[in-house]
Parts: sequence; C-alpha cells; structure tokens
Amino acid sequence: MLSRRRILVSLAAVPLLPVIAHAKASHRLWQPTKPTPLAFMNRARDLARLGSERGDGTPYGAVIVQNNIIVGEGWNRSYIHHDATAHAETEAIRDAAKRLGTRDLSDCHMVTNGGRPCSMCETAAYWAQIQRMWLEDGEDVVNAGGPKYGGC
Amino acid sequence: MLSRRRILVSLAAVPLLPVIAHAKASHRLWQPTKPTPLAFMNRARDLARLGSERGDGTPYGAVIVQNNIIVGEGWNRSYIHHDATAHAETEAIRDAAKRLGTRDLSDCHMVTNGGRPCSMCETAAYWAQIQRMWLEDGEDVVNAGGPKYGGC
Repeated sequence: MLSRRRILVSLAAVPLLPVIAHAKASHRLWQPTKPTPLAFMNRARDLARLGSERGDGTPYGAVIVQNNIIVGEGWNRSYIHHDATAHAETEAIRDAAKRLGTRDLSDCHMVTNGGRPCSMCETAAYWAQIQRMWLEDGEDVVNAGGPKYGGC
Repeated sequence: MLSRRRILVSLAAVPLLPVIAHAKASHRLWQPTKPTPLAFMNRARDLARLGSERGDGTPYGAVIVQNNIIVGEGWNRSYIHHDATAHAETEAIRDAAKRLGTRDLSDCHMVTNGGRPCSMCETAAYWAQIQRMWLEDGEDVVNAGGPKYGGC
C-alpha cells in the first residue's frame, strides 16, 4: 500500500513529467551558450570535423533544434557503420526522433553544413516534417525554408 | 601452447571463413525454396502485411537479394520506431549493410512491394549502389533497372 505522503509526492510530480522527459531527451547533447543559427551551425561543423577526423565518414554534420535546444545530432557515419544511408542529416533526424519519441519534427529546424542536403536526406527531412533548414553558404548561415520532396 | 593438431585444424578452417561469414550474415532470414523474383516479392508482401498488421507502420516490405539469397529485409517501422525515415526499403538496405558489413551493395538487387520507392528510399538505394530494383505492377513483378538519384 502507498502511504498518503507517497501518493501526494507522486501526484505533485505529475506536472513535471514533460519537463523531465524533455531534459532526458536532450541529455548529453552539447548546447550553445547563446542559441543562434551560427552557434548551431558551428556545432554541425564541429561534428563534421570530429567525425571525419576519426574516420567515421565524410565531413558532414547536422543538428536538429527545437525551441532553441539541440534535440538531435548526427554526422556522416557511412564508413564506420558500413551504411550508405548514414548521412549526417538522416542520422540527426533519427536521433531527434528517438530522443523525442515522435516521428513528427514539425516544430524543429535542421542545421547542416556543406550546402543543400542530398535528395535522400532532404526527403527524409520532408517526411519528418522539419519546419526549416539552415544551410551553409561559405561562412554564412542561410535560412533555406522547408525541405522539399526529392530535394527539387 | 597450441598443439600441432589444433594448428592444422585452424589452418584448414581458413578457406571456409567467407562461407561461414555469409551463413552468419543471412542467419535467421527466411529464404524461398525456389529463388525467383516472384518468390522474393512474395516475401516483401508478407513482411508488409505482417508489419502493418501489428501496427509497426504502413504496408510496405522489401528484401535485399545477393546471389539468390536474401541478405537483408525490412518493413515500414515508422510508427513503432517513431521514425519518419524507417521506410521498408531504407530499413532493408541498412539491414543488409549491417549483416554483410559493407555499404557497397553493388552485387545486390532490391525487391519491394507497392510500386516505385519514394525519393528518399530510391536515393538510399542509389548511394548503396543497388544493382537492380524489382517492383510490383499489380500482380506482376517488374525489373525496374538500377535506382536513380532523387528517383527521377
């Protein structure tokens, strides 16, 4: 039997659940001090560099951002995973979906280095309903709008 | 110290390693009695039906075939995995790559029900260098050639 005190404590915790779940979802993901598109892009660039330096794959990185919080990250792991589909953007989308427990990322942005994603990744972002893509244009970070089916 | 007999037995096993590795790779994957395009398509249809019946996702299935052996299989798991990218074809490509330990599936065919794959999946097959796609056309199974970038 639960004591009265225990029941009260349990009930009091209920409104906190979404917050706890969110904290868990973003657990262990690096966050920038100031959440700007450039800060998120720099994280994508870091992931790209770190991943390629250790031989995981080609130098591409991506982060998925929800309400200025990184909720998913990925880098090209096609070599290390022996998987031609392990591109940075698809890895980041899968990571965010897993952490958030939903395939609907319509309130999320995707930030990725190296220009426009390939057709596979942009269509993946389209299916995940990613709201907006932020891409690299030299040193700049540009708002490329929502992903399109087929990338065209 | 290894005995002389043990060393001889070990050396004798070396030429068998590729065979063992292949057997392991296809371990637990159902194989048709007679390896025809229709038999592989029927397996894809079964995976589609079984997966959707238990609520994993939409009714799509796919198998990856190498030398008439199924080396990877997948079905739509977008609901169960909370993942918009978990389409049957992409799941099957990832499964085959994992089992074979290579991202190069250039000696493999992909058999999938439900017509032409979406742009994400066909580009995934393109990156994996899938040699040929076999698609459904009503009750028929048609050779659709190699996958194209973007599916167009």
